[in-house]
Amino acid sequence: SKMTFEKKKTTEEKGSSGGKADQGNKGEQLIVSYWGVKPMKITKEDGTEWKWSCFRPWETYKSDLTIDLKKHHVPSTLPDKLAYWTVKSLRWPTDLFFQRRYGCRAMMLETVAAVPGMVGGMLVHCKSLRRFEQSGGWIKALLEEAENERMHLMTFMEVAKPNWYERALVIAVQGIFFNAYFLGYLISPKFAHRMVGYLEEEAIHSYTEFLKELDNGNIENVPAPAIAIDYWRLEADATLRDVVMVVRADEAHHRDVNHYASDIHYQGRELKEAPAPIGYH
Amino acid sequence: SKMTFEKKKTTEEKGSSGGKADQGNKGEQLIVSYWGVKPMKITKEDGTEWKWSCFRPWETYKSDLTIDLKKHHVPSTLPDKLAYWTVKSLRWPTDLFFQRRYGCRAMMLETVAAVPGMVGGMLVHCKSLRRFEQSGGWIKALLEEAENERMHLMTFMEVAKPNWYERALVIAVQGIFFNAYFLGYLISPKFAHRMVGYLEEEAIHSYTEFLKELDNGNIENVPAPAIAIDYWRLEADATLRDVVMVVRADEAHHRDVNHYASDIHYQGRELKEAPAPIGYH
Repeated sequence: SKMTFEKKKTTEEKGSSGGKADQGNKGEQLIVSYWGVKPMKITKEDGTEWKWSCFRPWETYKSDLTIDLKKHHVPSTLPDKLAYWTVKSLRWPTDLFFQRRYGCRAMMLETVAAVPGMVGGMLVHCKSLRRFEQSGGWIKALLEEAENERMHLMTFMEVAKPNWYERALVIAVQGIFFNAYFLGYLISPKFAHRMVGYLEEEAIHSYTEFLKELDNGNIENVPAPAIAIDYWRLEADATLRDVVMVVRADEAHHRDVNHYASDIHYQGRELKEAPAPIGYH
Repeated sequence: SKMTFEKKKTTEEKGSSGGKADQGNKGEQLIVSYWGVKPMKITKEDGTEWKWSCFRPWETYKSDLTIDLKKHHVPSTLPDKLAYWTVKSLRWPTDLFFQRRYGCRAMMLETVAAVPGMVGGMLVHCKSLRRFEQSGGWIKALLEEAENERMHLMTFMEVAKPNWYERALVIAVQGIFFNAYFLGYLISPKFAHRMVGYLEEEAIHSYTEFLKELDNGNIENVPAPAIAIDYWRLEADATLRDVVMVVRADEAHHRDVNHYASDIHYQGRELKEAPAPIGYH
């Protein structure tokens, strides 16, 4: 698609804004750049303008709510048990910290949940580069998971506003968790995927508790944020309860993908030897 | 889309392959897993089966060959000049190493070119998480760039086979460049994007030289690899020359996106304040 932005074809004139560092006022002044690339104008089916720039209408979906929420991977080998008990031991302080504040819990934990998919996707990407080998689609599947978890955050942050010490905690936890998971994935993707599988099993449990709090009125069942209605194709009058239902179904899908990825390694194989479940939600 | 794989619904039986670490023989034995997620079966327009798992028919495109290949960002500020001369100084040893072997050059340098987009995308993703803020679509735009450059590699490695010391060099260079760019991007995304803009300007120059070698017969104009024909929607009888033309056009688009990203920072703004050019190719 042709994207010429400026009339000037060859070397830009000295004075144009692209070159010079003109620190224009920070107000609504449009960012003008010789290299400006105008994004495509997109409208929804009903002709209204598409509001979101981080996802497109064709990237939205209806969540499969029939997925089995009870599925559990029985830890049989030592690494499995280690992964399982690591996750279980993390549950205890988390429950203590959040008590029944599930809106805040979801918002805070989604900042962590969106890291493994990105780190895994990046490491598989780099491996594909330096080994000159195909990826079997797993880079996309893992990056898709990370973006989906990030969208959970973009949704919950509309409902629960983080205060300053929650923000500080999130920054500290990201610094630790990002590096720990990066290292863990380098050492043993088998263990890393298994742990994420168990983290997702816990997330499903927490979202079920969230639903209970909504149903007994402890948490107000506010209208669903606009971003959620568009992203999961919810009804216009959808509520927070509908959002928690689809988010929980997403987590179940991530649980399957990660236990599957771990199983592939358990059978002495690499991810690229099994086609990746892209678009599995 | 429903993806139940195994009949067993609740906790899996002990003996199922999913749990135990049965190191099945490494041959063509299908990877069986209780968590197995069957990928969607996809066929091309002409009904034949889609062969690639890392990209789908709707992710292919026709490259815009009319893009201006001469566009150059005149370095005016000190960081600009530093970026420009860093890239120029890298050109000298690279030319010395590769001489006129442009097939090998493309294959080796694409393993490096696919790193900045991934690192940038990951860092913008993590920032969006810890700051509870939107991304303006830039995560997707940068990850798209990384995947596009990786597809260049998947194409050229069909044409030029790397030998053992080229593989060793690629591993060493990735180790250094990944960490250097990671640090560089953390410190100054403005400088990092400007450098990638200049690297792309050099890549366009190198691909033009590649075309000359093809035209004067020094490099054999072999048929285009199947993956390239599908990915860029080339004609069935496309040749390596057609591939180099579309790859060069891709690099020009990456040049625009990165100079634009740098300009946004130059105007004291953040990427998220300007909608990202997703799908710009």
